[in-house]
Amino acid sequence: MHDLVEREDNGAVARLTLNDPGRVNALSDAMLGALARRLDNLAEDPAIRAVVLAARGKAFCGGHDLREMTAARQAPDGGAKAFADLFARCTNVMLQIRDLPQPVIAEVQGVATAAGCQLVATCDMAIAAEDVRFGVNGVNIGLFCSTPMVALSRNVPRKAAFEMLTTGGFIDTARAVELGLVNRAVPAPELTRRTRELAEMVAAKSGPVVRMGKRGFYQQLELPLEEAYALTGRIMVENLGHADAIEGMGAFVEKRAPRWEQDAPE
Amino acid sequence: MHDLVEREDNGAVARLTLNDPGRVNALSDAMLGALARRLDNLAEDPAIRAVVLAARGKAFCGGHDLREMTAARQAPDGGAKAFADLFARCTNVMLQIRDLPQPVIAEVQGVATAAGCQLVATCDMAIAAEDVRFGVNGVNIGLFCSTPMVALSRNVPRKAAFEMLTTGGFIDTARAVELGLVNRAVPAPELTRRTRELAEMVAAKSGPVVRMGKRGFYQQLELPLEEAYALTGRIMVENLGHADAIEGMGAFVEKRAPRWEQDAPE
Amino acid sequence: MHDLVEREDNGAVARLTLNDPGRVNALSDAMLGALARRLDNLAEDPAIRAVVLAARGKAFCGGHDLREMTAARQAPDGGAKAFADLFARCTNVMLQIRDLPQPVIAEVQGVATAAGCQLVATCDMAIAAEDVRFGVNGVNIGLFCSTPMVALSRNVPRKAAFEMLTTGGFIDTARAVELGLVNRAVPAPELTRRTRELAEMVAAKSGPVVRMGKRGFYQQLELPLEEAYALTGRIMVENLGHADAIEGMGAFVEKRAPRWEQDAPE
Repeated sequence: MHDLVEREDNGAVARLTLNDPGRVNALSDAMLGALARRLDNLAEDPAIRAVVLAARGKAFCGGHDLREMTAARQAPDGGAKAFADLFARCTNVMLQIRDLPQPVIAEVQGVATAAGCQLVATCDMAIAAEDVRFGVNGVNIGLFCSTPMVALSRNVPRKAAFEMLTTGGFIDTARAVELGLVNRAVPAPELTRRTRELAEMVAAKSGPVVRMGKRGFYQQLELPLEEAYALTGRIMVENLGHADAIEGMGAFVEKRAPRWEQDAPE
Repeated sequence: MHDLVEREDNGAVARLTLNDPGRVNALSDAMLGALARRLDNLAEDPAIRAVVLAARGKAFCGGHDLREMTAARQAPDGGAKAFADLFARCTNVMLQIRDLPQPVIAEVQGVATAAGCQLVATCDMAIAAEDVRFGVNGVNIGLFCSTPMVALSRNVPRKAAFEMLTTGGFIDTARAVELGLVNRAVPAPELTRRTRELAEMVAAKSGPVVRMGKRGFYQQLELPLEEAYALTGRIMVENLGHADAIEGMGAFVEKRAPRWEQDAPE
Repeated sequence: MHDLVEREDNGAVARLTLNDPGRVNALSDAMLGALARRLDNLAEDPAIRAVVLAARGKAFCGGHDLREMTAARQAPDGGAKAFADLFARCTNVMLQIRDLPQPVIAEVQGVATAAGCQLVATCDMAIAAEDVRFGVNGVNIGLFCSTPMVALSRNVPRKAAFEMLTTGGFIDTARAVELGLVNRAVPAPELTRRTRELAEMVAAKSGPVVRMGKRGFYQQLELPLEEAYALTGRIMVENLGHADAIEGMGAFVEKRAPRWEQDAPE
């Protein structure tokens, strides 16, 4: 059985590829499970310092698997229990991405719709080919993109998010950049290279330092200002005690390149 | 006595028109009362699935009625009680718009100042003619736009909001689009048609589904991420149990157009 | 001993100038202390109604003083206590700016990095020369900009903030304007004049009214919508009772220029 989510490591960068192009990489039960396992493994892998989330085929991700969901309606409860379970698992995957020690960069081609658009919004960063279309278009089939809007509305201004959600319309990459949904647009043939370059830039930093920073980033976003400063002040002190900060600051003062612990020969 | 807020229905779209052009559609006691009654009625009207909020004359809305407020100063308490009551009623109208089951689209021409700019910010979406001027300029007359800034600062980046509030300066439509205060600019002669097209796009969706989505949108915005997902996960399950989701998903799988309950012949 | 932070008053505008260009205006212990004292004094000075925060030399501010911090490592605890104290003092200065009765406008030239970029984000408004570079690049030396990100992430969309923080890369002024980190770009030779013009526009308003507005602005930002309206409704009533609102509204109705209490001859 082929891997629904492939993993390929290149130095300190892991590349995950959604690999179900015949079903527009839908977040089926199997796909969510495969993605969760890949993320679980990455969380335990200190050799990896940046993750690219890519996809094979004409679509980045088309959202939930409607055939599977329709089949679930045959249960005596009309599928209610199966649906609750599905959204719990999907949310867990989104939270896994936020909680992953390594930054995750979406590499987006083709189209990203509904929970596929949520996946882009959930990644820490995103680079998209110039011709991608983004939508949270569940409303067109009577299923408002309520879970996707959680991630979307934390990335883009609210009136733009509301329009996407209630019209079911698409935006292009240029608009997605303006709104803050993706970091930048690149020509389609350069997509993989440019995303890898960004990942390598992140992977060249100290892994434990970026890990502290990423965790603090999402924690402080949800706190009032004073509490956010209290938290991040503690993180700064912890960070300053780390060997990589001692090395990095020393290197700066001595005007030489730093050498992180991770770069030491075994 | 003419209607201060006119209502005209066209299919499933209701168009409210502020109709006091001689007083720049100021939010007088009578205007707030008329608007509140129209919104109350719309909230109970399942035949309406989208609302346009437009205005007659050279100004969309000039904010509060300064003559009325000045007259209130004659009371023994200098107007304190009347003012507290005024802002409570004005806030209630703003919350009515947020809580209305139907999406509300501002159709903005001329100028929108102070509480008039707040009204634009409060609507779920907004389309503006290219030559509109937006301001929260109460500071120019010694009355900081403190209530308008609540809506403004939830739509635009904080430094831009702060500048508008403390300089009393105006921004044009192009800047309002950049900042996220309005969804887009259109040529003035096309304003009504283009706003109606957006409203009709929304009204073509399932009314109960959009209602669930709109309510959830504003609820989840104020929650921490995990709670937002817990809430919207429940909404998804509820939505999936609705007849329009069953129909819409079935239609998608069968590659045909869905037919919502609201479209059924009586 | 020269002043690390110079103050020059011009009418109701105070100009603070970071004056340690040989050390890129680093936020050393002495610099933080000098800045705190200047802000303390300004908070008590009702004659000042707007503040410009400028800097001398090729850099606006290069962040913390790494030599001083490196020296602190010699303590038996490796500097932990000194670092905790440093970030507490730095945070206090940032909160002083937010809590200052007068609006503070950053006048940014050269480069603003790490806590220097935080300083720009913390000011109520910012104007920058067209060729400024902004970065939160501590990650390059193993020290993630965790405290700067608190201010940064409240001004710019999260994916853009995340990229700056984890790549250590710089953005230029044009991008900083797009993201909302600064209000606008001006040609370098016009920087001081254009910032002064903005400050004078703010200083021409009623000081007590702007003070009420600024305090309310940051309070309401952190409240749920209903509470934000309850708070600002009370501020509106308080504002309406102020002599400058009575004068300003009266002047508006009578179509004449208002005359604030602060403008009265002694």
